Amino acid sequence: MPRIHFHQQLAELKDKLLAMAALAQQAVESAVDAYVQRDEGICQYVRENETAINAAQREVDEMAYELLAKEQPMAIDLRFILAVIKINGDLERIGDQAMSIAIRTKEMLDIPAVVLPVDIENMGDYAGRMIRASIQSLLEGDCQVAESVRDMDDEIDQMNRVARAGLTQMIQKQPEVAEQALQTIMMSRSLERIADHATNIATDVIFWIRGADVRHQLNAAID
Amino acid sequence: MPRIHFHQQLAELKDKLLAMAALAQQAVESAVDAYVQRDEGICQYVRENETAINAAQREVDEMAYELLAKEQPMAIDLRFILAVIKINGDLERIGDQAMSIAIRTKEMLDIPAVVLPVDIENMGDYAGRMIRASIQSLLEGDCQVAESVRDMDDEIDQMNRVARAGLTQMIQKQPEVAEQALQTIMMSRSLERIADHATNIATDVIFWIRGADVRHQLNAAID
Repeated sequence: MPRIHFHQQLAELKDKLLAMAALAQQAVESAVDAYVQRDEGICQYVRENETAINAAQREVDEMAYELLAKEQPMAIDLRFILAVIKINGDLERIGDQAMSIAIRTKEMLDIPAVVLPVDIENMGDYAGRMIRASIQSLLEGDCQVAESVRDMDDEIDQMNRVARAGLTQMIQKQPEVAEQALQTIMMSRSLERIADHATNIATDVIFWIRGADVRHQLNAAID
Repeated sequence: MPRIHFHQQLAELKDKLLAMAALAQQAVESAVDAYVQRDEGICQYVRENETAINAAQREVDEMAYELLAKEQPMAIDLRFILAVIKINGDLERIGDQAMSIAIRTKEMLDIPAVVLPVDIENMGDYAGRMIRASIQSLLEGDCQVAESVRDMDDEIDQMNRVARAGLTQMIQKQPEVAEQALQTIMMSRSLERIADHATNIATDVIFWIRGADVRHQLNAAID
């Protein structure tokens, strides 16, 4: 009986983490939307959403801690709870990066809009797909999906490099739009970091399932 | 008897984490030195140091996981091990940011040196002091020292904002040095992120000692 109860609690912990993931995913989509539509209201929404993310993070952490303290789980269950704690931290950082994009977007509303050589919307979609797939791999305990997320990371690193190069050139030719270009360089970097966090989540899923520490088989991707 | 053995293992875990902290601290100092001295050899050293940091991180994580699995610790010991896991992650990210600074420094060696309105050395010293104090608070279990680290964070956020504003202005006036200015904007941001990680470490120390979740009493500092 107590073990059944324990597994119900693990399922509940997973549900709480999925709610946290939904909030983080939502934050990224909204922040990119705010940028694309130049909408101050959506920026504000992302900032308010942050409070909900922080509350959700605390709930997940507290439940994980209680399960560790009271149930003294072993092997795969222990690895699952440790993975949840780490994934929870990555989701919170995804939320932070989304907020950073929203804050930059709001700052850009005060200066003229210019056409910039960067497709933030496409990068946002790509990062969003990576988050979704990483969460799917967690839901289904699917290492193959998790591996596919890790494979996706190179592409967005490349998008970020190309964006940065193009925007730097633009700054040199048209210094009057330096502020706009700089802000989007930082946004592109935020989206690349969001993709890194999705990659971390996928890696934690693999650790949970296989018990192997795969973290440093990946080359650390720093642009 | 087994509890004595367990406390020896906890002490060993702490020692391993301190070794990890020393490597991360070393990485930051070296990366800033490499920038100040424009020294390619030091850049290379920081990159090689990264492998040692990753190995140290894995060792800490594995030992923490084994202690959780075999010893089923309670209350303050459990909180200590969870704090170690989180602090370990922050130290690894400090190492990543140091490597990012070293990579940018190396890229800057290929372009002319210019005088820039940013004191990377001073910011590096300040961030280094924050790391040191956060580790000291861990060593001594001292919440007051941990609180002092959290108080230091605003100052480096401000340094980063000032640096970014000055460098953006410079780009607008002298677009021919945009590349140099951009790289240092990113370095300043890396140092500010390193300080954030030191603040996270201090927060985890407080969680370990007091058992309180103090994380979101802080305003999230995003520039």
